[in-house]
Amino acid sequence: MVPKVVFGEGSFDQLPSILATQRQEKAPFIFLIDDVFKDNKAFLDRITLRFNDKLLFIPTEEEPRTAQVDSLVQDIKAEFTKNPSGIIGIGGGTVMDLAKAVSIMLTNPGSAADYQGWDLVVEKAVYHVGIPTISGTGAEVSRTTVLTGPVRKLGINSDYTPFDQVILDPELTQGVSKNQWFFTGMDCFIHCVESLNGTFLNAFSQSYGEKAYDLCKEIFLEDNLAESESRAKLMMASWHGGMSIAYSQVGVAHALSYGLGYVLGIKHGVGNCITFQFLEEFYPKDVALFKEMVKKHNIEIPQGVCKNLTDEQMDLMIEVAMSMIPLWENALGADWEKVITRDKLKALYQKM
Amino acid sequence: MVPKVVFGEGSFDQLPSILATQRQEKAPFIFLIDDVFKDNKAFLDRITLRFNDKLLFIPTEEEPRTAQVDSLVQDIKAEFTKNPSGIIGIGGGTVMDLAKAVSIMLTNPGSAADYQGWDLVVEKAVYHVGIPTISGTGAEVSRTTVLTGPVRKLGINSDYTPFDQVILDPELTQGVSKNQWFFTGMDCFIHCVESLNGTFLNAFSQSYGEKAYDLCKEIFLEDNLAESESRAKLMMASWHGGMSIAYSQVGVAHALSYGLGYVLGIKHGVGNCITFQFLEEFYPKDVALFKEMVKKHNIEIPQGVCKNLTDEQMDLMIEVAMSMIPLWENALGADWEKVITRDKLKALYQKM
Repeated sequence: MVPKVVFGEGSFDQLPSILATQRQEKAPFIFLIDDVFKDNKAFLDRITLRFNDKLLFIPTEEEPRTAQVDSLVQDIKAEFTKNPSGIIGIGGGTVMDLAKAVSIMLTNPGSAADYQGWDLVVEKAVYHVGIPTISGTGAEVSRTTVLTGPVRKLGINSDYTPFDQVILDPELTQGVSKNQWFFTGMDCFIHCVESLNGTFLNAFSQSYGEKAYDLCKEIFLEDNLAESESRAKLMMASWHGGMSIAYSQVGVAHALSYGLGYVLGIKHGVGNCITFQFLEEFYPKDVALFKEMVKKHNIEIPQGVCKNLTDEQMDLMIEVAMSMIPLWENALGADWEKVITRDKLKALYQKM
Repeated sequence: MVPKVVFGEGSFDQLPSILATQRQEKAPFIFLIDDVFKDNKAFLDRITLRFNDKLLFIPTEEEPRTAQVDSLVQDIKAEFTKNPSGIIGIGGGTVMDLAKAVSIMLTNPGSAADYQGWDLVVEKAVYHVGIPTISGTGAEVSRTTVLTGPVRKLGINSDYTPFDQVILDPELTQGVSKNQWFFTGMDCFIHCVESLNGTFLNAFSQSYGEKAYDLCKEIFLEDNLAESESRAKLMMASWHGGMSIAYSQVGVAHALSYGLGYVLGIKHGVGNCITFQFLEEFYPKDVALFKEMVKKHNIEIPQGVCKNLTDEQMDLMIEVAMSMIPLWENALGADWEKVITRDKLKALYQKM
């Protein structure tokens, strides 16, 4: 778990004093920043660079890849003789995951792809700070960093993955577009639904998952929250949602969404929404709630994304989804293969 | 915050493998254990002692004192040439607080009393593990360790106070007596009420506080939980309640209860219940709920505890309560002194 967190509007400005205690001589802080902030001078001016600190802007149209991590690490190692004092990720789930992965790969040999899986990391990561600017993924609190590798999309799950420090400043999520707000918020709602309806659930995950779920309902279905309140609550929903899945698992929507992501590069939050709407069979009450939210906020979910798939693409998509065994086990129990067949998945994908 | 936590029935048995990675040569693990387990051979047999590891039984009739911390530290230092590999606290709030304080004082000079306050600890504490066996105080997750010192009852609040590892095993709370279950559970309920109704509240504390509050209502007012579920949920309520007050404050009941504790040695959970029942003026809805819980579980709250106080004792009690300025500010805002006078507190104490 994340050992240190500060929360509150404006808490972002505590960053310099937080970093001051961690600075090592001649070792820079590297800031990985969502490139949506590239031309936001007012925001960038709030980041105090000292000595050889460095800003790197991260394009976030695509999900993070192991090759991207390797190349970032290579660049940092080429430029600096000492390992950085720390990595600071400022952005959405993609930047959070990259910051965690880069900080791990600065102290561990080989490629990030070598560490996709559970507890494969040997050396403690470089000090790393997460500052989310979009709420919902839970990446700011999770023990994993989901990466698309050469052979699979899978997280680096380890004790060294979580951030050493997180700054939760709801003000930073102010500029998020409506679609992104919704799709990323729904990532939280959907993984809570999957966790709460899963067979792996325990009281720990349940208590976090229920709180995140309740907050999502309040934010996306009710009308009694001021905008700043709603932002702060969504930030906490993301946090609790992330905690919930740390000790349980996601389910059907995520398994299918991984297939969409792997074959079509569809972003995680959007992919979850595309799949979830067709899962009444598994989550009837919550798919109905979800549709209410979509309607209320007038969101258009991409349609027909699987329309022009080649047979090979469809096969690969089914392959990827089927391979998510822990997700299916969580969703449907040990006998999941009686329900989930290749034909069943094909029929589901063909609706999307 | 606590960086590592395991949860689940039977998770206590993961302790040896957790400790194995932390053992330093010739440096023992010291187990501080609530002396209620002294004759519980079955339980003690589950604790694997290796090399020079040591069990110390802790009497818990009284709240922890700074002098007690100092004497435990002295004993450990006298017996071992090296600082321990770790301190493991197994018990209720008293043992949790002692374990945290001892681990701090093994690396910091002077008396524990020197560190009562905020961020006075300089050196990182010895590795410490918390294993709660009673749920409610939140001491397993909090950033403080409340101690009665020579001049005040006040916590050692620091970044080094939280446990490095917590094991939440609801099975361990099975033997708790009904009264203790209730009074300690109400500690959680009451500090959530105080936090949620306080002026210091933010969305972070609110989300944790609401979850703990809802769990308490479910546990203490509804009848639909199996015993093992109820135990697991109370453990999580304690956890979330502790997180809630980490970033907010408690209020009127705690301020008054500190007075009772200081002058009469009344234990914290009991003291909170004694005071809370008379606080309709401040927390009307929740005092009513509390009375429902008391009735439902047929609990007798001690009465007339202030009946035979001397004038000096009453004055001291009022003094201690009045000195809890942040609690009053949280409960009633900056103008609290307009409402809370010595006479007002005297009148309240005289009811108890």
